[in-house]
Order: sequence, then structure tokens, then C-alpha cells
Amino acid sequence: MAEKTPITIAIMTPGDMGHSIGQVLLSSIKNKFRIITNLTDRSERTQKLSNLAGIIDVKTDEEIIQQADFIFSILVPSQANSVAQRFAPFLNKNKHIIYVDMNAIAPQTVRSISTLFPYGNFVDGCIIGPPPGSHEHIPIVYLSGEYAQKIADLFQFTDLINVSVIGNEIGQASALKMCYASLSKGITAIATQACITAKFFGLEEVFFNELKQSMPNIFEKLNKSIPHMPPKAARWAGEMEQIAKTFENIGLSEKMFQGAAETYQFIAEKTPLGNEIIEERKRGQTLNDALEIMTQSLKKKTYDE
Amino acid sequence: MAEKTPITIAIMTPGDMGHSIGQVLLSSIKNKFRIITNLTDRSERTQKLSNLAGIIDVKTDEEIIQQADFIFSILVPSQANSVAQRFAPFLNKNKHIIYVDMNAIAPQTVRSISTLFPYGNFVDGCIIGPPPGSHEHIPIVYLSGEYAQKIADLFQFTDLINVSVIGNEIGQASALKMCYASLSKGITAIATQACITAKFFGLEEVFFNELKQSMPNIFEKLNKSIPHMPPKAARWAGEMEQIAKTFENIGLSEKMFQGAAETYQFIAEKTPLGNEIIEERKRGQTLNDALEIMTQSLKKKTYDE
Repeated sequence: MAEKTPITIAIMTPGDMGHSIGQVLLSSIKNKFRIITNLTDRSERTQKLSNLAGIIDVKTDEEIIQQADFIFSILVPSQANSVAQRFAPFLNKNKHIIYVDMNAIAPQTVRSISTLFPYGNFVDGCIIGPPPGSHEHIPIVYLSGEYAQKIADLFQFTDLINVSVIGNEIGQASALKMCYASLSKGITAIATQACITAKFFGLEEVFFNELKQSMPNIFEKLNKSIPHMPPKAARWAGEMEQIAKTFENIGLSEKMFQGAAETYQFIAEKTPLGNEIIEERKRGQTLNDALEIMTQSLKKKTYDE
Repeated sequence: MAEKTPITIAIMTPGDMGHSIGQVLLSSIKNKFRIITNLTDRSERTQKLSNLAGIIDVKTDEEIIQQADFIFSILVPSQANSVAQRFAPFLNKNKHIIYVDMNAIAPQTVRSISTLFPYGNFVDGCIIGPPPGSHEHIPIVYLSGEYAQKIADLFQFTDLINVSVIGNEIGQASALKMCYASLSKGITAIATQACITAKFFGLEEVFFNELKQSMPNIFEKLNKSIPHMPPKAARWAGEMEQIAKTFENIGLSEKMFQGAAETYQFIAEKTPLGNEIIEERKRGQTLNDALEIMTQSLKKKTYDE
């Protein structure tokens, strides 16, 4: 593939993470990249984020294939397969386009998806960290597969995203994401259950004081992560199910992360916090307010002996 | 109850935690306490720990009732109920003896046990922290129930154990323990799964490097906790089941901690580490060695797509 400028990257879809990655690449070197997408049937919010980032809506998948050198799939886990199915037939005719699955999915899920691309123009990726450009932590894109280095090269033009090639096999980048997210989001799931329970029993003050004494880092983490989580809870539920699949597949218990999925489903579906949109939040922005609402949303109001 | 010296406390049973609490009370003020127990059918290890601590084996439950002012139940969760059943009939005739359940059990479990003591000579307790006397952290005994302050008073003579009365209701101390242990031991369960998975995929180095960068406190915790956990895994499994019951009972998902129980059962029953005894460990004392053995013990050696 001869290098041309601008390099055209399609991002499917430019949501929270996708639009930020597009924006950062666009601002890295002037005219180095064009970022395109297809906003048909996307939410008003995604359309707005995408436009603000300077991403071009080419309106059809055919136009994406016409113009793109790379397609980045950055989605909720449940859509990773269907979007790959949409693009795979085109990419088997246009083998110069490389498809990068950057989703939080189980290694066996991404290996299954990769079989849709028999010509091997497929890279496994994952993103660890917050969307780039707006936080103190710089996110890192981990990549694995035969063409992983080609994707890594794209990120050399920005210092707002780090990049690391970790191997030649499809599945490695996704496995890493599952391990990492099991800790970062698994701890938040446990902390959410623990804090709701403490509040249910009227013990939140004594519980928080004990945590401040003996687990100050954990208290600091949950104090931030519980109020930030509700608008993302629905998306995280699907990610927890992928972690459960990952563990089950190698012979470990699947239940912890099935339970984490249920915990996030409870927040998303059974509490009023699940409907809040990141940019327009009204409730649950402090730990106490979030826990107040979550505890009120429990079906049971007293406990059985 | 007139205060007498020595105050006689029966500890059932003087295992890791029980014998340390006995030892610390005995060494607080000379002749302030006598600590007794009944070692019938206890393991050689418990007998040895108990003798070394200066705890007197009175050999029968009848002698315990004759001599004791207080009975501390410090057991694995599965035995909490049967030991209470053993002593309750005696205590209903000897109402001056106060029975303290200090076990890691669900609030509904301890409330159910408390109904065996209709005269109310029952206190709910829990212990947060390591056994006293040998570590940098001082453990704290939390107490709830009508006579909680009487128990708290016993601990005023030592500065190796802290104490806090948190309420008048049976169930509160146990609920606090469930919330706390869900974080402390739940994080270790997740970390164990995550690290085994990373090692399975040959990614432990990149995973640990990422954790050191973005979650250094978590890496430090798992680096210590995973190698320390295997000899306690069997005991922790029962505690995880009590946490699952606690969450389920107020309407949260029970699965996370059913999964944590299965994770600790796997370590206890399916890896050679489960048979190691704390004082005589040979394997698994470093993170890498522990993970090597755990990963080899997985049933599956390759993953399915």
C-alpha cells in the first residue's frame, strides 16, 4: 500500500470514544488524516459529537469503501459482529483496506469475527484509558495481528494516544482488554453493590470511615467511579458479559462477571440514573446522591431472615 | 453482672484469628483474663496454636458453661450455626453468659442464629483486619446489639485490637463485614481470574506493565494478595457465599460472589496450592510462581472460538 496523504480512516461509530480518537488524529498534523463515517440511523448525540469533531458524514457504506484506507470499529460489544458482517464482503473485494476491531470483546469473539476476513486484512485492537484529549491519563491502543504495526504507525503523529503492538495473533489485544476491564470495571461493580448494601443498613458512614482508614485508595476510586458510572452502565453490561465469556472459555468461573453485568443492568434499567446523558446530568453526581437513588430503586425495602 | 477478675472468655475456636485474639487479651493486663476452649476433635494445628497462646483446654462444653463469662464464636461461616446450636440451650439457662458471634456471615444468617438466644444474651460482631499482634495493621472488632458495649469494654485493656459499637441491632456488624470483605476479597478474586487469564494468553508482562502504569495501587495489592490467598481459599469460599446471600437478600445480584466462591474453590480444590498450610508453605509464594501453578491447573489448555 503506497502511503498517501490524507490517509482516510472510517470510524464506526463516532460515539464517546470514537469521535475523540477521530478528533485527536485530525488535530495531529494538518491534512494528514481525513476521518469519515456513515451517520445513517445514528443518534442525534452521535451526529453532534461527530460534526463537532470534524468527522465527515459520507452517508453510505459504499462511500466508506470507496474512500477509506482503514476502518476502525469502535462500538458497544453487542454490535461488533454485525458491523463486521456489514463491511466484510466489501473488504474481501478491497483487500487494501484494513479493518481494525477495537471493541471490548472476548478473544474468542474477535477470533470468530476475524474469520469473516479470510484475506487477513484484519487487526485486533483495544483501547485502555479514557477518550483522548480531555483527561490527565493518556489512553493506549494495544494491537495484535499480522498488520498491527501498520495501525500503530497511524498513531505516531499524535502524543495524545499511546500505542503498543503486543503480538501477531488475533485475540491477544482483546484478551488484554478483558483482563484489564475485569479489574477496572469489576471493582466498580463490587463497590456499587457494597455501598448500596451499606446504605441499606444505615452503615454508609462507618463503612466509608473504615475504608478511608484501611483501604484509602479503594475509597478514592469508588468515590469517583460510582457517580461517573451510571450513564455508561448499559454499555458496560455488555462488556461484563464478554469478560464472563473470556473467563468461562479457559475454564474459570463465569459467574462473577455475569453478576457484574446484572449489577450494571440494574443501574441502567431500574434506577432513574440509567437515563442520564453524560453532558446533561442532573442527578447522582456525588457518591451520596448516587447511592441514595440506587438504594431507593431496590425492589426490596426490608430484608428477610 | 458483677465484674470479677479474671474474666473468663471461651473462644470457639482458637484457629488463626481466635488464638491471636486470645493471646492478645491474655497479654494485655496480667491475670485480667482467662481464655478457655474445648479442643475435642480440633486439628493438631489448632491444638498447637491454642497451647502456644496460653489458652486452657477445659475439654467439654459443660466446663465452658461452668467457667465462662463470655463465649466468642470465631469460625468458618459454615460452622457458625452449629456451634451456636450447641451452646444456646446452656445459655438459655445461664443468661449471664453473653455469646458473641464474630463470624463473617450474612446479616440474615446472624439474625436467624440470634433467635436461638431468646433472652437476648447475644451480640453480633465482626473482625476487620489481620489477626492482632503480628502485623502493621491493627484489627478492629465492630459490635452491634443490646449488650455490644459490654463486649467493647473487654477490649479496652489492649491496644492491639480496636473496637467500635455501631448500633443496637443484630445484623449491623455482620452487614458491615460483608460490605468490607466484598471489596477486600472480591478484588483478590477478580485479580486472580484476570492474572490467570493474562498468563494463559502469554500476556502477563504487558498486563502487569499496564497495571503498574495506570493502576499502581491495584497492582501492589494483587502482587501481595494473590500469593497470600491460597491457604485461606477454602475458608474464603464460604465467606463469599455469605456475601452473595447478603446482596441477594436486599435485591442485588448474587452472582458476583457465587462466582468469587467458585474462584476460591478452584484454588482450594483444583490446584496443589490449596493444600499448603500457612506455616509450612513450599509453593506459590511469589506472584509468578502462584500464577504458574494456577494456570497449569486449568482444565482447558487451549481456548475455543
